[in-house]
Amino acid sequence: MSWNSRYVYRFGSHAVDGNGSMRDELGGKGAGLAEMTLLSIPVPPGLTISTTVCRSYLEQGNMPLGLKEELAAALRWLEGTHGRKFNDEQNPLLVSVRSGAAVSMPGMMDTILNVGLNERNLEGLAKQNGSLRFALDSYRRLLQMFGSVVLDVPKKQFDFVIEALKEEEEVTADSEVSERGLRSIVDEFHQVIRRCTGKPFPEDVHLQLSMAIEAVFQSCRNERAQHYRRLHDIADDAGTAVTIQAMAFGNRGLDSGTGVGFTRNPSTGAKEMFGEFLANAQGEDIVAGTRTPMPIAELAQSMPEVYEELCTITGRLEQHFRDAQDFEFTVENGRLFLLQTRSAKRSATAAVRMAVDMVKEGLITKHEALTRVKTSSIGEILSPQIDFSLGVPEAIAQGLPASPGAAVGRIALSADEAVDAAGKHGENPVILATQETTADDIHGMAVAVGFLTAQGGATSHAAVIARGMGKCCITGARGIFVNEAKGTLRIGDTIFHAGDWLSLDGSTGRVFAGKLPLRAAETNNAELDTLLAWSVDLSSTAVRANADTPQEAAVAQRAGAQGIGLCRTEHMFFASDRLPHVRSMILASNVDDRKKALDNLLPMQQEDFEALFRQMSPLPVTIRLLDPPLHEFLPGREEVNAELKLAYGKNDAQKVEELETLLLRVQALTEANPMMGHRGCRLSITYPEILVMQVTAILQAALRVEEEGFVPAPEIMVPLVACAEEIRCLRRLIDETATTVLAKHGRSIDYSIGAMIELPRAAVCAGTFADQVSFVSFGTNDLTQMTFGFSRDDARKYLDSYLEQGILPFDPFVTIDQEGVGTLIETAIRQLKIKNPKIKIGVCGEHGGDPASIAFFKSLGVDYVSCSPARLPIAQLAMAQAEAAPLDESAPTNKVYSAV
Amino acid sequence: MSWNSRYVYRFGSHAVDGNGSMRDELGGKGAGLAEMTLLSIPVPPGLTISTTVCRSYLEQGNMPLGLKEELAAALRWLEGTHGRKFNDEQNPLLVSVRSGAAVSMPGMMDTILNVGLNERNLEGLAKQNGSLRFALDSYRRLLQMFGSVVLDVPKKQFDFVIEALKEEEEVTADSEVSERGLRSIVDEFHQVIRRCTGKPFPEDVHLQLSMAIEAVFQSCRNERAQHYRRLHDIADDAGTAVTIQAMAFGNRGLDSGTGVGFTRNPSTGAKEMFGEFLANAQGEDIVAGTRTPMPIAELAQSMPEVYEELCTITGRLEQHFRDAQDFEFTVENGRLFLLQTRSAKRSATAAVRMAVDMVKEGLITKHEALTRVKTSSIGEILSPQIDFSLGVPEAIAQGLPASPGAAVGRIALSADEAVDAAGKHGENPVILATQETTADDIHGMAVAVGFLTAQGGATSHAAVIARGMGKCCITGARGIFVNEAKGTLRIGDTIFHAGDWLSLDGSTGRVFAGKLPLRAAETNNAELDTLLAWSVDLSSTAVRANADTPQEAAVAQRAGAQGIGLCRTEHMFFASDRLPHVRSMILASNVDDRKKALDNLLPMQQEDFEALFRQMSPLPVTIRLLDPPLHEFLPGREEVNAELKLAYGKNDAQKVEELETLLLRVQALTEANPMMGHRGCRLSITYPEILVMQVTAILQAALRVEEEGFVPAPEIMVPLVACAEEIRCLRRLIDETATTVLAKHGRSIDYSIGAMIELPRAAVCAGTFADQVSFVSFGTNDLTQMTFGFSRDDARKYLDSYLEQGILPFDPFVTIDQEGVGTLIETAIRQLKIKNPKIKIGVCGEHGGDPASIAFFKSLGVDYVSCSPARLPIAQLAMAQAEAAPLDESAPTNKVYSAV
Repeated sequence: MSWNSRYVYRFGSHAVDGNGSMRDELGGKGAGLAEMTLLSIPVPPGLTISTTVCRSYLEQGNMPLGLKEELAAALRWLEGTHGRKFNDEQNPLLVSVRSGAAVSMPGMMDTILNVGLNERNLEGLAKQNGSLRFALDSYRRLLQMFGSVVLDVPKKQFDFVIEALKEEEEVTADSEVSERGLRSIVDEFHQVIRRCTGKPFPEDVHLQLSMAIEAVFQSCRNERAQHYRRLHDIADDAGTAVTIQAMAFGNRGLDSGTGVGFTRNPSTGAKEMFGEFLANAQGEDIVAGTRTPMPIAELAQSMPEVYEELCTITGRLEQHFRDAQDFEFTVENGRLFLLQTRSAKRSATAAVRMAVDMVKEGLITKHEALTRVKTSSIGEILSPQIDFSLGVPEAIAQGLPASPGAAVGRIALSADEAVDAAGKHGENPVILATQETTADDIHGMAVAVGFLTAQGGATSHAAVIARGMGKCCITGARGIFVNEAKGTLRIGDTIFHAGDWLSLDGSTGRVFAGKLPLRAAETNNAELDTLLAWSVDLSSTAVRANADTPQEAAVAQRAGAQGIGLCRTEHMFFASDRLPHVRSMILASNVDDRKKALDNLLPMQQEDFEALFRQMSPLPVTIRLLDPPLHEFLPGREEVNAELKLAYGKNDAQKVEELETLLLRVQALTEANPMMGHRGCRLSITYPEILVMQVTAILQAALRVEEEGFVPAPEIMVPLVACAEEIRCLRRLIDETATTVLAKHGRSIDYSIGAMIELPRAAVCAGTFADQVSFVSFGTNDLTQMTFGFSRDDARKYLDSYLEQGILPFDPFVTIDQEGVGTLIETAIRQLKIKNPKIKIGVCGEHGGDPASIAFFKSLGVDYVSCSPARLPIAQLAMAQAEAAPLDESAPTNKVYSAV
Repeated sequence: MSWNSRYVYRFGSHAVDGNGSMRDELGGKGAGLAEMTLLSIPVPPGLTISTTVCRSYLEQGNMPLGLKEELAAALRWLEGTHGRKFNDEQNPLLVSVRSGAAVSMPGMMDTILNVGLNERNLEGLAKQNGSLRFALDSYRRLLQMFGSVVLDVPKKQFDFVIEALKEEEEVTADSEVSERGLRSIVDEFHQVIRRCTGKPFPEDVHLQLSMAIEAVFQSCRNERAQHYRRLHDIADDAGTAVTIQAMAFGNRGLDSGTGVGFTRNPSTGAKEMFGEFLANAQGEDIVAGTRTPMPIAELAQSMPEVYEELCTITGRLEQHFRDAQDFEFTVENGRLFLLQTRSAKRSATAAVRMAVDMVKEGLITKHEALTRVKTSSIGEILSPQIDFSLGVPEAIAQGLPASPGAAVGRIALSADEAVDAAGKHGENPVILATQETTADDIHGMAVAVGFLTAQGGATSHAAVIARGMGKCCITGARGIFVNEAKGTLRIGDTIFHAGDWLSLDGSTGRVFAGKLPLRAAETNNAELDTLLAWSVDLSSTAVRANADTPQEAAVAQRAGAQGIGLCRTEHMFFASDRLPHVRSMILASNVDDRKKALDNLLPMQQEDFEALFRQMSPLPVTIRLLDPPLHEFLPGREEVNAELKLAYGKNDAQKVEELETLLLRVQALTEANPMMGHRGCRLSITYPEILVMQVTAILQAALRVEEEGFVPAPEIMVPLVACAEEIRCLRRLIDETATTVLAKHGRSIDYSIGAMIELPRAAVCAGTFADQVSFVSFGTNDLTQMTFGFSRDDARKYLDSYLEQGILPFDPFVTIDQEGVGTLIETAIRQLKIKNPKIKIGVCGEHGGDPASIAFFKSLGVDYVSCSPARLPIAQLAMAQAEAAPLDESAPTNKVYSAV
């Protein structure tokens, strides 16, 4: 039989028009049914209206020409195949109508069963099946589903009727209602529909069918579905398919029933069939929860043949689709029908275990395994999570999910308070809640389990530090006000005090009052370790870590970092034993005094570098020269003013003089826009002695550890380069310093010099300094700031609006803006490679830990990305996925293998 | 006689190897002498060693091979032509040796006369000229010049000898010294040279010559010459030529003499010969100033034939070179010799007058006239200048010359103080001296004659406003500290008080104590008006003005602006009758309250726009929507805190509440980097009601003035665009608003919508919104800030170092950075023109008034530049020059026609 339909695809024992690869046209359900038919797996026959029809309907407001005829022809075929006729009064064909988008989404109309039943053929159905009760039960189900889904009658209206009747008959379960009772329910349902819609229930079965189809299309447009698509980055115009399938009746008695299952445990990933079965029931009964289904394994006792067949079939499905399956089935009088199969949704833990197991079983390759796990799953596994299994309480505030994981602890409103509250050994969990954090708060952040800030964006200080530390962080939480003086935290109208319990869900940005249960991080997940090891092995592009301290370097090294891509030397300057020397250096009124202060810092910096080199030997360590504006190392103006007042009061002349000098310096260093101020390599040019100290420390450290047998590989990075002459001038200074240091020791050390590209000008003019450097590293945070003119600390005020209004498709501080910033990076890389083919190119901004950005960088041909140690596993997996898949497939949502 | 020399060029009655166009090879002097010879103007014969020799000498440290032979041959030729022999004891040939770079510069060795004289041929010279006195005078001149210039003997050593002898002989003038006295001077000069150098004076005439040549080359390298070259952007390796010329003796008696002159008055430009003559003297006597020369016109009496010949010859020179000439001449026993001719340096006023006169005389074309005036001359003419004719006092501070002109006035240390001190009618000149200025200081700036700030760069607030107002301004003056509280201004160690006199030279950035004499601006210079009218007529690219008020627009319109390229609406918001409404708008806690405040602002904005449209009709007026961050309209945090303290003290509950609300809002609006904060079109997106008010005001104003018979041409500009979606969204909002307003009036108005490109992303992605706009305007200030990551308010701290160290060749806020920022602009323009060929492209940053930048913009094909009204004349001339000359010739320094 030739089939020329453009819109309608059949599946059934004797004719299959589609196959499993046609998800876009047939939806997941339709494609799965077609594929199962091809595999000779028993499915009730049916037909699928393609997504093309839906798109056409949504665009033009009516069904495409010719559909009606095609549908009629397909129905005739179905009637022939199934041996029943639609609207036949003796032996009516009943069908289910289901939506089936390529990517399933909640909120879409799901299922209407028993379409085709009416008052006229009810008797026929009853006779045919030898049970009026069965026919009435099927009819009331149709009325109930059609009424609520297609006609928008509130569900409660139907529930009231059933509840009233059950009360009257004094029964508790739906299945115990008498035949007479069912009849009266059917009658009352008719009246409910007429009352609520002003029209009778459509007895015309063709009208039932066409209304059901249209309802599916309409549901594409409802708010919940749109919201879900936006959230999961699914195109708005993909449409949905409609699958119309002959009914298999699970409600035909005790040798019938309906069930759902997974080929592997979706929570743990264990290889065991998992699911539920409900006898004498139709699909929606399992979901409704009015009766308790039995575990699927018990079928082995109650229906051993069915169970065996089910095991065989689902085993074949898993082998065929090469992935764990989530299936639905119906048993009609002992006969098994599969209704649906699809890739099983799974927890993060399960995704990892299944992927690794399937490689061991020989089912998939390692490359495939790497694409089976979402990068976000890694974060879920490796950080604590709030245990919502007992329910989700109402959030008291919503902020930006700046760093994933969860934290439950007592509130501290300042860094000092956090240190006190945490206890000597950090035994008490503390949440640091502040307006914002600054570099001064590091000691408090180090002891806290999570941070909550009223201000700041995704790359504010708190967010960056949190991700670096792998701690949970929520920033820019609106409606929060921290009054440090009063020791209160106001969230909405509620006042919290220091010491009160608070729970943070860093993955969603929700803040909860009180102490919620916490599920600990799975730090020892052998399968995950295996998967990550494969990731590193299978990637040609390296993943390094940003690490400022030997401790961070150790974490990075254990996690398989292929070097340090960014060591921010200034973070070492904030340590309490160094800050006084840093301040003397800044307050020095002449070069000699400044050099003296630097001489004191030298051995400390050298020690830091020694530890880093030892830890990472023989991997490269990129050390960035001092970057932040100097005022960051001084106390704030208000702080000094307050101290000055005290000193005036005490008539302490020496202190007054000291503080007045400090105040003048603080004022002189104050900048209108510090982000574009006196920082980066500008410091090295105006204060070359700082650079000389740092380079000396780096090289002396390298010499020392080399003596101990380590292999140091220092890379010296010049930050905030704007023009070629800067790097030329500083390269000369670095080389001169190195010559002096190495000559003194009569030895040599390989070191390389590179530039950090974080200003648009450096990107545009990269060709002009390509021959001056051995490597460059893109500082994508600052580059994003300057390219957009978005200060990351301030942008939150409008960025939220921008994202809500769709002016920006995503936060450019989280995922790289390919169109603008990306073009600059691409331009720079092109120039660099032409002028210096041997140049090494890296990325060390926050984007180096973002999967979508990693795929983009990989496509540009970078040699490495570098991210915070906590994000290493995610970056490693993302890099491996980028290697395995072309750019667009590794976009943030992996539609097929998404976790629950 | 064939001449194959590579290095030596002859000039003389029978042989000329070069001509006037060979400045680069022969230097200005050598080329001029060659050309004069070609014109049959009497010059003593001579030869020029080309600049190639100098370059070779400076690079390799010795003279090129073959030079010696060529020089010997040339000398033989000279001896033949002149009839005297070098080192001939009876009739010696004496020569002058002079340097001659293509561009003359101070500090280079100038002249050594009488080379070739020694003890052996002294007698011969005396006999030949019948005067031992003359010979001795010539010899002591040689010893003196050779000693000081070539041998580096301090000049004073020679002066002491002469002074001692004049005392002994009881005479006052050099010329009165006796023959015996001259002999003893010569002897003592010999001893001075031997004492100071350890060697005798070289009696070998060939050695004299080669040492003199080498001294010329060496002088290329001295510090003063290097500094001058750097200052005037002259290449360091151009080298100098050396001209060796037979002596014509002006010291041969009273029918001899030497003189210098101009064909036109170099101060006023009047067409009259101008210069000085000194009888019985050699060239250096005029410069030395020991005798008073006579005005050149008096030659008409004393040497009528010489005078007539001089007039004829210099007239011919002017006609030939088609420019005013600066010439030197010598009369030897009644015979006139020209020694040099070159384009005359001239004052700004003279340059303009000469250019216009010469067009009227038919000597040059209008196009040529436009290239004869430096753009900086315009500023000199149009702004007051300190009159340094009585001497230049020592500057007490040096700042950045942020806006040219000069100001002399009494110090005011705050805007309010300035208003008080200026008097009701602004009758007292006031200089506003502050740490920095902010938008709050506008009222004080309006009454001051000049601004001095301790901080800020070339495009700081004070600088921008000053240039806009056409007032003198010095910013970032180091070592200045303003103590507003104490009412003192400390400059170095000197304390000034409010009311003390101060003088500012805005063209150089120098600050002087006290009241220096001021030369007023020439506001009625008819020749300048003519020249500028030609500029506008001859330019195909328009020059518009940036104007925020009807007053500024009027100035612009009178100055020939071809439209308003930028009207910053926010400047209207600062007026005292508006600020309260602006603040209510900002403090509004909901949209309705905000709309109410905006309703109050609407009629005021409308009035402003009406006045602008009337003034400029029918020229286009580009109105930029609100741009600055809102906190700029609120008082500072410290100010509110101070008021709050007062209110607490008074127990004024209502005031306290009001101020507490204000404080919260101020805090909420405070930004870490306001330049990259919530501003520009981000405001319109988050507060669309502000845009609606502004667009309504623009269109209602246009409707109103159209009724009056004017032709309004509003262009609505969206500032700080980063992505296409912003402009798409705001364009929709503007069009909707316009539709509403126009429908209400049942009329239509042509308006256009454009984007301001001031973020790197907008430049990179310009193609994505090209079809959404009718025009774009490059905001080059902000674009420069973001591209370099240089905050213009903070950059001074390192920018000075950068310029000093040569890391940047110029201040990118003054002259556009072609390599980086320019590349972005070029990229954007290319995309824009491809996607929207009809698009209009403008530039409205500060660079729109900078001549070098204008030439660059013109080369990129922009349709207009826009600058502050005060800079219009400069921009008009620069644009005309860019039209007339290719890009590199219109660079900042016009070497040939530079003003004095």
